[in-house]
Amino acid sequence: MTDIVRADGRAVDELRTITIERGWSAHAEGSALISFGGTKVLCTASFTNGVPRWLTGKGKGWVTAEYAMLPRATNSRNDRESVKGKIGGRTHEISRLIGRSLRAVVDMKALGENTIVIDCDVLQADGGTRTAAITGAYVALADAIEWGRKKKFIGQKSTPLIDTVAAVSVGIIDGEPMLDLAYVEDVRAETDMNVVVTGRGLFVEVQGTAEGAPFDKRELDALLELGVAGCADLRTHQLASLQPAGE
Amino acid sequence: MTDIVRADGRAVDELRTITIERGWSAHAEGSALISFGGTKVLCTASFTNGVPRWLTGKGKGWVTAEYAMLPRATNSRNDRESVKGKIGGRTHEISRLIGRSLRAVVDMKALGENTIVIDCDVLQADGGTRTAAITGAYVALADAIEWGRKKKFIGQKSTPLIDTVAAVSVGIIDGEPMLDLAYVEDVRAETDMNVVVTGRGLFVEVQGTAEGAPFDKRELDALLELGVAGCADLRTHQLASLQPAGE
Amino acid sequence: MTDIVRADGRAVDELRTITIERGWSAHAEGSALISFGGTKVLCTASFTNGVPRWLTGKGKGWVTAEYAMLPRATNSRNDRESVKGKIGGRTHEISRLIGRSLRAVVDMKALGENTIVIDCDVLQADGGTRTAAITGAYVALADAIEWGRKKKFIGQKSTPLIDTVAAVSVGIIDGEPMLDLAYVEDVRAETDMNVVVTGRGLFVEVQGTAEGAPFDKRELDALLELGVAGCADLRTHQLASLQPAGE
Amino acid sequence: MTDIVRADGRAVDELRTITIERGWSAHAEGSALISFGGTKVLCTASFTNGVPRWLTGKGKGWVTAEYAMLPRATNSRNDRESVKGKIGGRTHEISRLIGRSLRAVVDMKALGENTIVIDCDVLQADGGTRTAAITGAYVALADAIEWGRKKKFIGQKSTPLIDTVAAVSVGIIDGEPMLDLAYVEDVRAETDMNVVVTGRGLFVEVQGTAEGAPFDKRELDALLELGVAGCADLRTHQLASLQPAGE
Amino acid sequence: MTDIVRADGRAVDELRTITIERGWSAHAEGSALISFGGTKVLCTASFTNGVPRWLTGKGKGWVTAEYAMLPRATNSRNDRESVKGKIGGRTHEISRLIGRSLRAVVDMKALGENTIVIDCDVLQADGGTRTAAITGAYVALADAIEWGRKKKFIGQKSTPLIDTVAAVSVGIIDGEPMLDLAYVEDVRAETDMNVVVTGRGLFVEVQGTAEGAPFDKRELDALLELGVAGCADLRTHQLASLQPAGE
Amino acid sequence: MTDIVRADGRAVDELRTITIERGWSAHAEGSALISFGGTKVLCTASFTNGVPRWLTGKGKGWVTAEYAMLPRATNSRNDRESVKGKIGGRTHEISRLIGRSLRAVVDMKALGENTIVIDCDVLQADGGTRTAAITGAYVALADAIEWGRKKKFIGQKSTPLIDTVAAVSVGIIDGEPMLDLAYVEDVRAETDMNVVVTGRGLFVEVQGTAEGAPFDKRELDALLELGVAGCADLRTHQLASLQPAGE
Repeated sequence: MTDIVRADGRAVDELRTITIERGWSAHAEGSALISFGGTKVLCTASFTNGVPRWLTGKGKGWVTAEYAMLPRATNSRNDRESVKGKIGGRTHEISRLIGRSLRAVVDMKALGENTIVIDCDVLQADGGTRTAAITGAYVALADAIEWGRKKKFIGQKSTPLIDTVAAVSVGIIDGEPMLDLAYVEDVRAETDMNVVVTGRGLFVEVQGTAEGAPFDKRELDALLELGVAGCADLRTHQLASLQPAGE
Repeated sequence: MTDIVRADGRAVDELRTITIERGWSAHAEGSALISFGGTKVLCTASFTNGVPRWLTGKGKGWVTAEYAMLPRATNSRNDRESVKGKIGGRTHEISRLIGRSLRAVVDMKALGENTIVIDCDVLQADGGTRTAAITGAYVALADAIEWGRKKKFIGQKSTPLIDTVAAVSVGIIDGEPMLDLAYVEDVRAETDMNVVVTGRGLFVEVQGTAEGAPFDKRELDALLELGVAGCADLRTHQLASLQPAGE
Repeated sequence: MTDIVRADGRAVDELRTITIERGWSAHAEGSALISFGGTKVLCTASFTNGVPRWLTGKGKGWVTAEYAMLPRATNSRNDRESVKGKIGGRTHEISRLIGRSLRAVVDMKALGENTIVIDCDVLQADGGTRTAAITGAYVALADAIEWGRKKKFIGQKSTPLIDTVAAVSVGIIDGEPMLDLAYVEDVRAETDMNVVVTGRGLFVEVQGTAEGAPFDKRELDALLELGVAGCADLRTHQLASLQPAGE
Repeated sequence: MTDIVRADGRAVDELRTITIERGWSAHAEGSALISFGGTKVLCTASFTNGVPRWLTGKGKGWVTAEYAMLPRATNSRNDRESVKGKIGGRTHEISRLIGRSLRAVVDMKALGENTIVIDCDVLQADGGTRTAAITGAYVALADAIEWGRKKKFIGQKSTPLIDTVAAVSVGIIDGEPMLDLAYVEDVRAETDMNVVVTGRGLFVEVQGTAEGAPFDKRELDALLELGVAGCADLRTHQLASLQPAGE
Repeated sequence: MTDIVRADGRAVDELRTITIERGWSAHAEGSALISFGGTKVLCTASFTNGVPRWLTGKGKGWVTAEYAMLPRATNSRNDRESVKGKIGGRTHEISRLIGRSLRAVVDMKALGENTIVIDCDVLQADGGTRTAAITGAYVALADAIEWGRKKKFIGQKSTPLIDTVAAVSVGIIDGEPMLDLAYVEDVRAETDMNVVVTGRGLFVEVQGTAEGAPFDKRELDALLELGVAGCADLRTHQLASLQPAGE
Repeated sequence: MTDIVRADGRAVDELRTITIERGWSAHAEGSALISFGGTKVLCTASFTNGVPRWLTGKGKGWVTAEYAMLPRATNSRNDRESVKGKIGGRTHEISRLIGRSLRAVVDMKALGENTIVIDCDVLQADGGTRTAAITGAYVALADAIEWGRKKKFIGQKSTPLIDTVAAVSVGIIDGEPMLDLAYVEDVRAETDMNVVVTGRGLFVEVQGTAEGAPFDKRELDALLELGVAGCADLRTHQLASLQPAGE
C-alpha cells in the first residue's frame, strides 16, 4: 500500500463511513438502513411460512432478494422500471447476486419450509450499491430468522444462519488497488471487482471485470486481499449492529 | 367535536406527528422526507431545462409526479410493479392526483420551458400516503424552483409558485368525523375523503368515497371543515421547513 | 340559477337527451346502451356463479367493472391500450370508480357467492363518459341480478340491490355552475366535478377537481346541489327503462 | 344445391340479414355499423394527412386496420387484451387480413401521402366477424377517401378506390356447402373458408381450413362458387348504403 | 407448364434441394433440421405426459406449435421478439398455421392424454419458412409419437398419426405459376399461396393472397395443382428420412 | 493434477471436443457455429454503419451482444421469453457478459462509427453455453470487422481488433478442480467459475460462485490456472478456424 490519499481523504484500504440503522422498518420481520458513505440502501426482510410450489414438501426453505433503485437515487433521474414495464439487465443481475450471496450462509434444511424475501432499495447511490445491499441484507436476514424462531416457524434448536456474509467493491485506479469505490472512483477504475466474503474469510462470489485494460494475476491478488480485509471490517459493523439482540 | 380519544391518543381534529426532513437527497434539485406518524414518504424533485415534445415552443413549463410504494412499506409484502410488468390502477390514480395538485399552484408561464418531475416513494405506510406525498412534494417543488432560479433557467422576476398546497385525509368512523386517519382507522372508516387545499383555503381536489354506507351533505360539510383546518396546520409545517431559505 | 343558454340550447340545470336501450346485447345477462347526448356507452353485465379465489367461502359476492374507449370514440384517434400493451391511468381510475359506485348499492351477502363484471365500452365520446357508464351500468347490473335470481344462483328472497345509483358531471364555466357538461364545455370548465348519488339522495362519490383556479365552499355547494338534482332525473330514466320487467 | 333448410330457416346459399348503418360515428371521417345477422361490427375510418416514417417521400399512401372484440361480444366473457397486456394471435391474424383486403382495392399512388386506419370493433359476435368487418370497412374507407378529397388532401382527379371488396365465410356442414355461417354452424363445420372477393369477381384472399377431415378439390370448388356469389350480394348492399353520396 | 428457367436454374414445377436431418437434437423426443434450399428450420418435438388443464379428463391429447426466427436468419437483422416484449402478428399467424396443420393428421383420442409441443426455429430464411416448418415438424412429430409409444404413454395398438402432412408455397410471377418460391421470387410474386396437403392428396389449408392484382379461378387452379404435386414430392423426402425406423 | 477420469473420459484439464464452423450463415457479415461437446451455439455478427444515438459524433464504434436459448435446447422444454413477454435475469446477465468480453478486445476508435451486434443463440445446451458463446462470437466478430474493412466502413489502416478473447468454465467437483464442465458436472460443482481471457493471457472477466461451500484462495488459484490454460487451447481453435482468410 502506498500513502496515496483519495478524493475524500481516505487511505486506499479504508472503507467509507459505514452506518447500519437496524430495525428501520416498523413492518418488516427484519430490516436495516445501511450507508456506505453517500450510498444508502434500505433492506427489508419479509418472512413467510411456506415455500414456493417447486420446493414444497422437501423440508427446505428459500431465501431470495430483489434489488431496485429509486428513480432519483442517482445524479440524474432514471425512468422507473415499473413505468417501462420491464426490469433491466443490471437490476436482474444484482438481485440474483444478492440472493446467491445470502443463500451461501443459510442452511436451508435448518430454515425449514419458510421463505424470506429480502428487498434492497437504493434510496441514494454513490457507488457500491450492490455491496452495501448484501452487507445490509445480512442484518435484515438475521433478524427475520430470529423472528421466525420466536414465532416457532423455525425449530428452537435450528441454526439456519451458518456464517456471516459481507461484500465490498475494489478496483484499480491509475494502477493503484483501492477499497470501497465511491462513484467518482468507480467510473475511473480500469478494473472493478466485487467480492463477497464470509465471516470465516472464504469467498462466496468473486466478480472481476476489466473496464479498461485486462488485468493480470498479480493485480487480481492485490484486489482480493483488499476485499477480504474490507469484508472483515464490514463484519465488525454487522455484528455491532446486531449486538443488543432485539426484535 | 366530541372528546373522543383515538387509538393513538389523538383528538378527532388532531394531526399525527408531522416531520419534514428537507433536502434529504444529495442529488435531487429539491427533496423532502416527510412523516405523517408512521407514514414516511421520500419526495424528490428533478428539474430539467426543456419540456416534453407536445409542449415545446409554447413558453410554458410542466410539472408531473410519480408515486410508488416499496414492496415492504406495508404490513405484508406486495409484489413490485416492475416485476409484474405493469402499474396498478391505484398507483396511476395517486400519481395523477399528486401531479394535478401541484400544478394547481404553479404558474406554468412563469416556470418557463422547464420540467419538474416529483417522485414520491413511500418508504413506510400507515395510512394517508397520498396526502403526505402531496404535502412533502410541495416542499421539494419549492426547492427545485428555487434551484432553477439560481441556475437562471427561471427568470429572476418570475414567481412560478403562486400559492402553497397541502393535503390530508378525513373520514367518518363510528359516525364521528376524524382528521388524518392512520391505517387502522382507514380500514374502519365508513366514508373516506382526501382534500387538497391551497394556502388561501381554497379546494384543489375533493375526493370523497363511501366505503360503507353513502353519506349525506351534513357529513360532507363536517369532513370538509376538518380537512381545511388540517391543511392549514400542515401549511405551517411546510413553511417552517422552508424557513432557512435553502442553499 | 340564471337564464344563461348553453351552446346546445340547454338551461344550466338541464341534462342532455338521455336514452337507455336496455337489453342491447343478445349474449350478456344484463345490458344497456346509454346515451347522454353524443356520449354513447355500451354496458354489459356478465354473471358468473362463484367468486374470485380471495373471496371464496365467505358467503359474499363481488361486483367489478372495466371501462374502455374505442380508439375512434373521440375526435382524433387514440392508440388502443391492447396495442400499447398497457392500460392508462385514466382508464384504471374510471374502472375503479364505476366498480366502487356499483358496489355501494349491492348487499354482497344477499348476492351470495356470485360475481358480476360490468364492461362499459365507450362507443362515442362527448363528455361525461364515466357518469353515463355508471348510470347505464346500474341498469345492466339490475338485469344481471334478476337473471341470477331466475337461474336460482341468488336466493328468491334475497334483495342484493339495496338502492339505485346514478352519476353526472357538473362544472363551473365562466363562473356559472352547469349540469352534465358536453365535451366543449368540459374543456373550458374551471372546476369539474363528478357526483355519484343513490336513489335516496346520498353521496357515494364526490370528485371535484380545480382545472383552473381552486374553488371555494360556496361553489362546491352549488355544484353538489346541481348534481344531486341531475342524478334524481337520471334515476327516473333508469326506472323507466327497467319498467317492463323483462328479460 | 339441395333444398336443405338451416337452423335459422335460410337456404344453403343465402346470406343472413345484412344491414349497414353508414355514418354511425359523429367523429370518424368514415364509418359503418354493419350486421350479418347477430354479428355487429362498428367500422370507423380515421384519415390522417401524412404517412408513417418508413413510407415518407415516396408519394404513396397507406391503409391499415385493427380488429378487436368487446369482452362480452361473445356468449361468455373474454378477458380484455389490454388487461392481459398482449394481443392474441387470432386478433393479429384478422387485423392483418382486413388490412390486406382493403389495400387490394386502393391505388396507393392515387391516395397520395395520406394514411387511413380502419378500426373494426365487434360489438356482438355470431360467426363471420372478420368477413363482416371487411365488408363494413369498405364502406367506411370509401367515405374517408371522399372526405380526403373534399378536404383537398387527395387530388380532385385521383381515384384511389379502384374496385369494391367484400368478404364472406363458407363451410361444409354434414357434407353440405353453406354460405355465411352463423356461430352454431361454424363450430360444426368440417371445413371453414373465408373468401375476399372484388367487385369484378376476382379473389383477394382465399383461406380454407380443414377443421375436421381434410377436403378435396371438388369441395373447394363448391365453396369458392358459393363465396363468390355471396360477395356479389354483399356488394349490392355496400353500393346501396353508399348511394345517397353523403359526407 | 412452359420451359421458363428460374434464377436458380429450376423448372417452374421443381422444388429446391430438400434435406432432412432427422434426430438433430440430443434432447428432444423428436427433431429434424430441414432445408428447402437456403431456408433452414430446426424442428423439435417435446413430449409431455398430461394435457393442459382445459383438456384434462377428456381422454384426448394435444399438439401445438411455436414458430420463431433467429434475429439474423434474414438478410438484415430483426429485433428479437423477447426484447420487444411482444410477439408479432406474423409469428402468431404462422405458429397457429403449423399447429392446425399437424393436428389435422393426429387422432387425439389415440394420442391419449399427452401433449406434444413442436418448436420450429428458423435458423436461416430464404422464402417458404412456414412450409419448411410444417414439413419438418411432421418428421419430429412422428418420432415423438414413436417415443411416447416406447415409453408406454401411448397405447401399443394406438395409431395417433393417421396420415402424413407437408406444405409448400406456390405463386404467380410475371403471370407464370411457380413452385416453392425462394425469397427473391416471393417478393416479386403477384399472388402468393401456401398449401398444406395430406399424404392422400387432400387439403388441410389453402391460403392464397393477392399481393399485387387479384387473381381468378383459373390461376387459383393452376397454383393448387402445382402445390399438390410439390407436397407429394415432399412426402417422399419425409418418408425417406423416417425410413430406418429410429429409436 | 491427478489422473482422475471424468464421466466422458476426459482428463481434468482437458477441453471437450471443440469445433468451429466458420461462415455458417449465408446472410450475416460474420458467423460461426461453435460446439463445446454437446453444447452448440450459433453466433452471428451483424454490421451496421452508424452508431446508436447516444454515441453519435464521438468517432467511436459500438459492439454489443444478445444471448438466447432455443426452448428445447435443454433437457426439458423452457417457455420462450418472447411468449412470456420478458427476458429472464440469466439471459440478461449472459448477454451483458458477452458484450463486455468482446468490447475488451476492440479499439472503438479504430472501429469508427460502426455498430456490430453479435447474436449468440444456443441450439443445444450441455453446460458452458456462455463460454462457448464468447469463444464463437470472437470468430464472428473478426469476420464482421474484416467485412467492414472490405466495404470501406473501417479505415484500411485501422486495427479494431487488438487481441483475441476466449472463455471457459472451470469448477470444483468432489474437491477436484476441472476444466470445461459438461452439464452433469456443472450441477454437481461446489464452485463454478467462468474466466474470460485474452490472447495475451490477461483476464477480462473472472466470475466465481460458490454453489455449495464457499471457496478459499488456494482453490481460486487452481481454478484460474486451469482456466487460463483452457483459454489458450481455445485460442488455437479460433485461430485455426480463421486461418484461410475468409470469403
